[in-house]
Amino acid sequence: MNVSTQDYAQFLCAHLFETRVMTTLDNTKQSGRLVRQKLKKSLRNACSVKSAKKRLPILEWLPKYSGAILVQDLIAGITVGLTAIPQGIAYAIIAGLSPEYGLYAGLMGGFVYLFVGSCKDITIGPTAIMAAMTSKYVSGYSADFAVLVAFLSGVLVLLMGIFNLGFLVEFISQPVISGFTTAAALQIAAAQLKGLFGLSGSGGNYFAESVVNFYHNFLTIKLWDTILGFTTVIILLLLKRLGDGCKRTDGFVKQTRWFISLGRNAVVVIIGIIVAYILKVVTDSEPLILIGDIGSGLPKFQLPPFTTQVGNDTYSFVDMANVLGPEAIIIPMVSILELIAIAKAFAGGAPINATQELIALGLCNIIGSFARSMPVTGSFTRTALNYASGVQTQAGGIFTGVLIILALSLLTSTFYYIPKASLAGLIMTAMFYMVDFMIIKRLWINSKKELFILLATIIICLLKGLEYGIVAGILIDAVILLYTTAKPTIEVNILRDEKGIMIVLILPESLPYCSADYTRRKILKASFEGELDTLMIIDGTNLRDMDTTVASNIITAVKDLDKKSRRIALLNFDSCLKKMCTDINSNVSDKFVNAGSADSLLEVSTRSA
Amino acid sequence: MNVSTQDYAQFLCAHLFETRVMTTLDNTKQSGRLVRQKLKKSLRNACSVKSAKKRLPILEWLPKYSGAILVQDLIAGITVGLTAIPQGIAYAIIAGLSPEYGLYAGLMGGFVYLFVGSCKDITIGPTAIMAAMTSKYVSGYSADFAVLVAFLSGVLVLLMGIFNLGFLVEFISQPVISGFTTAAALQIAAAQLKGLFGLSGSGGNYFAESVVNFYHNFLTIKLWDTILGFTTVIILLLLKRLGDGCKRTDGFVKQTRWFISLGRNAVVVIIGIIVAYILKVVTDSEPLILIGDIGSGLPKFQLPPFTTQVGNDTYSFVDMANVLGPEAIIIPMVSILELIAIAKAFAGGAPINATQELIALGLCNIIGSFARSMPVTGSFTRTALNYASGVQTQAGGIFTGVLIILALSLLTSTFYYIPKASLAGLIMTAMFYMVDFMIIKRLWINSKKELFILLATIIICLLKGLEYGIVAGILIDAVILLYTTAKPTIEVNILRDEKGIMIVLILPESLPYCSADYTRRKILKASFEGELDTLMIIDGTNLRDMDTTVASNIITAVKDLDKKSRRIALLNFDSCLKKMCTDINSNVSDKFVNAGSADSLLEVSTRSA
Repeated sequence: MNVSTQDYAQFLCAHLFETRVMTTLDNTKQSGRLVRQKLKKSLRNACSVKSAKKRLPILEWLPKYSGAILVQDLIAGITVGLTAIPQGIAYAIIAGLSPEYGLYAGLMGGFVYLFVGSCKDITIGPTAIMAAMTSKYVSGYSADFAVLVAFLSGVLVLLMGIFNLGFLVEFISQPVISGFTTAAALQIAAAQLKGLFGLSGSGGNYFAESVVNFYHNFLTIKLWDTILGFTTVIILLLLKRLGDGCKRTDGFVKQTRWFISLGRNAVVVIIGIIVAYILKVVTDSEPLILIGDIGSGLPKFQLPPFTTQVGNDTYSFVDMANVLGPEAIIIPMVSILELIAIAKAFAGGAPINATQELIALGLCNIIGSFARSMPVTGSFTRTALNYASGVQTQAGGIFTGVLIILALSLLTSTFYYIPKASLAGLIMTAMFYMVDFMIIKRLWINSKKELFILLATIIICLLKGLEYGIVAGILIDAVILLYTTAKPTIEVNILRDEKGIMIVLILPESLPYCSADYTRRKILKASFEGELDTLMIIDGTNLRDMDTTVASNIITAVKDLDKKSRRIALLNFDSCLKKMCTDINSNVSDKFVNAGSADSLLEVSTRSA
Repeated sequence: MNVSTQDYAQFLCAHLFETRVMTTLDNTKQSGRLVRQKLKKSLRNACSVKSAKKRLPILEWLPKYSGAILVQDLIAGITVGLTAIPQGIAYAIIAGLSPEYGLYAGLMGGFVYLFVGSCKDITIGPTAIMAAMTSKYVSGYSADFAVLVAFLSGVLVLLMGIFNLGFLVEFISQPVISGFTTAAALQIAAAQLKGLFGLSGSGGNYFAESVVNFYHNFLTIKLWDTILGFTTVIILLLLKRLGDGCKRTDGFVKQTRWFISLGRNAVVVIIGIIVAYILKVVTDSEPLILIGDIGSGLPKFQLPPFTTQVGNDTYSFVDMANVLGPEAIIIPMVSILELIAIAKAFAGGAPINATQELIALGLCNIIGSFARSMPVTGSFTRTALNYASGVQTQAGGIFTGVLIILALSLLTSTFYYIPKASLAGLIMTAMFYMVDFMIIKRLWINSKKELFILLATIIICLLKGLEYGIVAGILIDAVILLYTTAKPTIEVNILRDEKGIMIVLILPESLPYCSADYTRRKILKASFEGELDTLMIIDGTNLRDMDTTVASNIITAVKDLDKKSRRIALLNFDSCLKKMCTDINSNVSDKFVNAGSADSLLEVSTRSA
């Protein structure tokens, strides 16, 4: 035995121990038993008090509720409410719905989350992205589709929560999410150009369409709307700066500045209402485009619309589902994505209860759809506001809800005067902050590959629509990853001494199907290194997992080398993997050898000689 | 310094060297230069004699041609021709085309491959699977669509050859291919039930439809066709057994048995023709369903049909492309799959020239489409027959072609009498051998996961159609692989001694985006192991590749732990990866440390303390 072989054998010994420990854990039979034990345990747990608290978190915090907490929740709830009302109206406008839908959505989201939500800060309600994704169904068909989307999304999210499938959103990478968000912001802003300039015609269902429509309709521009729209943007920017450096806990002046800054959305809407009202009284006409009549009072609690009427056509549930199409599945996925992102951001490093959050989100959408809510999810702005306002429990949502109910009962005639240009300005300003400019620079420096994915996602979102862009981004990501996985690290060691050469290929831990051809070519290529009598060792000591496709490729390579009378040995393959190979071709069974020590490897080496 | 830390430091030293070598090779700038060098080299090579020989392999073998080779090629060519004619007719029937299309396809495939093919055994022509995938366009529209599919497939395959994209088919795993083949065989067989029993009505575009149609039309069964169909199957099975144990090189009796056995497809067709003719003469009617008039003579050489007429509608190229739809891309992919599989099987371990084979296949389809060929690819049966008949060069194809030309010129009036039942029997018998029963048992024992993929592919192929099944199989495979990739091996070592605990997380070589959340959770979970003052080391020594998504998750975890005043260090991160992290959040830059030796690690350990 030569020195190199001994070295290698020692290396093997060191490795073997480690690997054995791991493979024992992965043993199939054992994991089967573990699954059964887990199932039993979860059944037993399902009926316990602890699990009731887990599923109804209100049972956890309500008993500890106190007056001091109430005051803090009240302040936070009202602060959030002042933003929730203008945002709700604005997001309903984005979706192409009548404004009350946005208010219904904010109302029901808060009330349901109160019982089942696990994170005190999170505020559920309509969001700009969800609204943008719903808009094409509303503009093409009717408001009933938005409610049905809420119901179906809710069912899917609930099921994903129950079956613990929330991890699926982890397959969406940051560049794709970032690209999607940026494109969504651009799309929403582009669709608001119509409102900002008071144009006639349609707003468009996706960015490219909106821009083309803007170009075609530009000559219908209206002076008053344009002035009010731009003034709104300027006031919002100034009010945002007003709050810089101020905190809730500061002195009275700073505290007031902080509060006005936070409530700036409400401020510009109120200004808009006043301007519109004055203009109406002064000119005795309506020079501004207003949002007009709003359905007043609380929504009726009724079944979601499983059939609907569009023009003269009656759509059955199947027809409606066909209208939504398979791409509608992106809506619940995005709602989960938004919620999980927010939950992570506000969990402060504590593990988040994703299952419970998905169940809560599902229920918010399902129960909401009975009260004609549009699709809802966690709102980043309002959640951040809730946190900044010092909310203590999920009860904050009650006060937001009460404020919305008051608005729906008393203020709908006032809301009549909200100018669309104010809302457009409000939406466009918000969208500006959604675009992540820094990531483009960062990826340019650090990862061109990810920059490409980001840009591809943005471009497809803008040109074809948000749902296509995100799916394309996910697919591009997956293809690139598969391509990487197809070339695993297979180390080739060539050990030489006076007696000859030994070629050792060290297989990695895992060989998935797509690495099959690469592995085969690597083996054949390595075989060219040696001479005819060189012993070639394919070392499977580290190998824990291999697909049939790879096994049959390895066998093909071994057979091909065998035909050329090359000496080849498959070293330390796990017994399951060995069986996989010999089941494909039993002729190769004599090629498998096991060597746990230097001595036994020596034996193999001389026996094969 | 305690012993455990020293141990770990030594371990690190050993690792560092290895990693540095690898990262140097992966250096981006260097690889950029390599790409440029490669491009220059390939440009220079493009015009050399060697490259001409590579692109026109006929230049390689023709100068060495001799009389002895000619005889062997002649025998093989005729043997293959005797199978190519009945198979060509049968596959045209599968595609729903008039029989001459199958003959045109066999003819052009052979002649083009003669010049550009790199593997002497491979026979290009129509195959059952390609025919089955084309059939839905022919039955729904017209024969022109089959020719257009050939042309467009050819262009795509040629481009994939030129851009070296043949590797893409490696992303299709064996269970998916096997499931697809089995389902294709079942679908083709099911569609032939109509012919076998002489039924009226349509055959059906996919398995489920064919079975339903069979059930509905069963009462239109015809006695003579059924008898002839089943007789054909029995004769084929007997003739196959006749050749068992016989070789081309045996004595006269065995050689004849071998030849008749190989030519059994021609034998049963001839028997069918004789029976049909006798029946016609005796009964003075046509009790059997015959294939009828065949376009005689050679096809005209003309542009492929870029516009066509279906009924009264004129289809422009765009309309035709819309009819084909994005799912038609599966046809060239499957043609590549079949060809590469055959090339690998007959290369005998030599590396196959995939680029040249794709170029050849692309040209066969493109030039074929000018002669109204249906889509072609490598035929496994005829290639095996060619090999068994001892073919020496690609010139064998000439003799097959001449035989087909003779058939087209002289035998079309004879072919009129081919009974559809004979062809149905022939096709169904061939399909039986395409089903791989063993793989189900093998996967049941060795890999339930892959069995699931196989069965899912089969079921979707049968219920929805072949193209949906293969795409579904590929997607399921990819999702499972991504799921595995999302949980990379992150080793957690807890080093204890009298002074306290040090937690070391060893990151793997690569952390793709989908492992981001897993990595973050692993770090947070590991942090619970120690006490408040435990030093936690995230060891990036092995890490070569990381996505932004992972970087930001790691940063989030580090920040969260930092908030809890935990001591944490990021060890030996590559400078690029470090930059990626600090670009996301510059506050973490003081967490990065480098330690190449035991002493420096000691320093880190005390400095962080």
